Amino acid sequence: MNTNRLETFADGVFAIAATLLILNVDAQVSEDIPYLGRRLLDIWPSYVAYAVTFFTIGIVWVNHHTVMSQIDRTDRMFLFLNIGFLMLVAFAPFPTRLIAEHIRGEGARAATLTYGITLVLMALLFNALWLYASVGAQLLRADHDPKVVRGITRSYALGPVTYLAATLISIVKPIVGVILFAAIAGFYILESSVFGRTKQRE
Amino acid sequence: MNTNRLETFADGVFAIAATLLILNVDAQVSEDIPYLGRRLLDIWPSYVAYAVTFFTIGIVWVNHHTVMSQIDRTDRMFLFLNIGFLMLVAFAPFPTRLIAEHIRGEGARAATLTYGITLVLMALLFNALWLYASVGAQLLRADHDPKVVRGITRSYALGPVTYLAATLISIVKPIVGVILFAAIAGFYILESSVFGRTKQRE
Amino acid sequence: MNTNRLETFADGVFAIAATLLILNVDAQVSEDIPYLGRRLLDIWPSYVAYAVTFFTIGIVWVNHHTVMSQIDRTDRMFLFLNIGFLMLVAFAPFPTRLIAEHIRGEGARAATLTYGITLVLMALLFNALWLYASVGAQLLRADHDPKVVRGITRSYALGPVTYLAATLISIVKPIVGVILFAAIAGFYILESSVFGRTKQRE
Amino acid sequence: MNTNRLETFADGVFAIAATLLILNVDAQVSEDIPYLGRRLLDIWPSYVAYAVTFFTIGIVWVNHHTVMSQIDRTDRMFLFLNIGFLMLVAFAPFPTRLIAEHIRGEGARAATLTYGITLVLMALLFNALWLYASVGAQLLRADHDPKVVRGITRSYALGPVTYLAATLISIVKPIVGVILFAAIAGFYILESSVFGRTKQRE
Repeated sequence: MNTNRLETFADGVFAIAATLLILNVDAQVSEDIPYLGRRLLDIWPSYVAYAVTFFTIGIVWVNHHTVMSQIDRTDRMFLFLNIGFLMLVAFAPFPTRLIAEHIRGEGARAATLTYGITLVLMALLFNALWLYASVGAQLLRADHDPKVVRGITRSYALGPVTYLAATLISIVKPIVGVILFAAIAGFYILESSVFGRTKQRE
Repeated sequence: MNTNRLETFADGVFAIAATLLILNVDAQVSEDIPYLGRRLLDIWPSYVAYAVTFFTIGIVWVNHHTVMSQIDRTDRMFLFLNIGFLMLVAFAPFPTRLIAEHIRGEGARAATLTYGITLVLMALLFNALWLYASVGAQLLRADHDPKVVRGITRSYALGPVTYLAATLISIVKPIVGVILFAAIAGFYILESSVFGRTKQRE
Repeated sequence: MNTNRLETFADGVFAIAATLLILNVDAQVSEDIPYLGRRLLDIWPSYVAYAVTFFTIGIVWVNHHTVMSQIDRTDRMFLFLNIGFLMLVAFAPFPTRLIAEHIRGEGARAATLTYGITLVLMALLFNALWLYASVGAQLLRADHDPKVVRGITRSYALGPVTYLAATLISIVKPIVGVILFAAIAGFYILESSVFGRTKQRE
Repeated sequence: MNTNRLETFADGVFAIAATLLILNVDAQVSEDIPYLGRRLLDIWPSYVAYAVTFFTIGIVWVNHHTVMSQIDRTDRMFLFLNIGFLMLVAFAPFPTRLIAEHIRGEGARAATLTYGITLVLMALLFNALWLYASVGAQLLRADHDPKVVRGITRSYALGPVTYLAATLISIVKPIVGVILFAAIAGFYILESSVFGRTKQRE
């Protein structure tokens, strides 16, 4: 089985999950709001949450692309690992809304914890599908570069650890956890696109 | 007419139907919930329903791919059978929400029955489109392997029967029916990806 | 400019518009419904409306595919005609819900009229994009068959007329109009897939 | 990294953002409306807003296609600029609804301002991704025509300026701003498809 349809399906889930995020912002402004301008300023956490999760999904999409560019066949196990991974990507809009609505209230801890668990599981399943494909070069292209493959493995292994740390911190101090979730995305983008120009293989 | 655009359209419906499932979870938590953490634990059936239907749609997507890999042309009848089949796939988020919300209440029977009927019809239409394509090798690739084709036919024929059995049981005992719906998905994944490695053609 | 990305975008809109239809059904059943089973039976017009519009979008998708198979280039005007056409396809879920909810009440006339106008405009724009592409063979493949092209032109010209007739009837007798909308879709499917096997070029 | 998957992901976001616009119209008509016909006429701004934003997204999609047709490779920075740009495209349904609901009330200024800022940022990011790709011919096809590239650069540079002007006007006179947003889309379509036939390269 070739990889085309998996990419189409995955890109569909990525695109829909990212685009559905706007419904979270939308739900914050009911029609009969009297002071619209004030309300639009007041819901600024929704915009931040929208942007952070949109970029986080974007980063995951870029990384998924990197994985797919190294392999040239799939099997059932690999497909189901992908479905599990995409299930967590599609889940992301829900905890994003929880954070946007509750970060300034008593539900902050529960909201950030839900967000963190989703990201940790997503990162774990992403590592699982990559390791399944790459250990023993099981699904890799015949002409893959072992050095590049090792680089990817090392780089992805950081994901679950980083997100777990941010999640644990968010239990103690939710707002710090949220800032870390945003910082992880921001750092990744800067690292891979600005500083990392010379070694764009991870 | 070639099969590319059918695959794009079908993959779109699969991806959207799966991703829309999160709206069901989302609707369970209104903004003004006082004890967010407790509520998030309380709605655990929503998470289970989300996962089971996401994987069920994923399985159906994998099987649809298997069908498409055996054929290399389509006709109007085949397209309309596919549309009918996709109509049932796109319907799945609705009974999923019914189960998530009503499995612990008086509506459990009605909810599981609706879910079961949807799956039985989906499996029937999937068999219909496969039989239409494969009987007389009408739409099959010239180089198809008759043994593989017979294997697919046998394997898919189990779908409606299995789901009908689970549906009938869910009339008597809804919770058992739900466990069976989950078990069917779980068993299929294990069977085809773990145990079935050596015969990955069904 | 080639036609690939137009097909991807169009198939996306078709798939999303069709899949969003389930939200109409979903909105009919609120969580705190006391007699779920009775409610699920009571909303049967929602299921019928869902199926009719899903198949209508499916038919339009098949026909759009037929158009695209005859042409091999696009220009700006053709793209914008397509966007206008897709705008009406994406509009369809709204009047579908109106019919499902109001066909048994005082709003039946307004609902069916809105549905009819949407379909008439959709059929008109579909003819516009086809005529723009085919008159003078402007965007057609070099190897197109003039006889096939004329057959398509004749067959599509019936669309706006048929839907206009059903719309006018729905002003006088809404329920008859709705039955006609369903019958048009059903007849088209039967005609092109069952009876029309021998002349599958329209 | 080639450009295929970026196009698939981008087309997904374009298609979903455009198709989700109908939910804005849908939310304006609750089920228990007594005079459905009157209500359907009364919400005409929703139809206008739907059409204007649908076509605006369509125009942006066409222009994104033009960009992609000039380049044949991507890098991380280009991908993240695209994700930022798509984040703003996916945001558009929200201010569209604000305008539809508030243009006749006190919230008109806040609504049009939000819409305008979204479009200005979208146009800025679109210029950013184009300049990133084209300055120094960094990501351009080897056989690109420098004259065409300069034409695109000039034409896109007008976007942010035009939208900024309309946004500033909408602060003083919201309704005029909205008319300008619609006029910009309309003029662009006429210019590029009717008048601009002879120079269809911008």
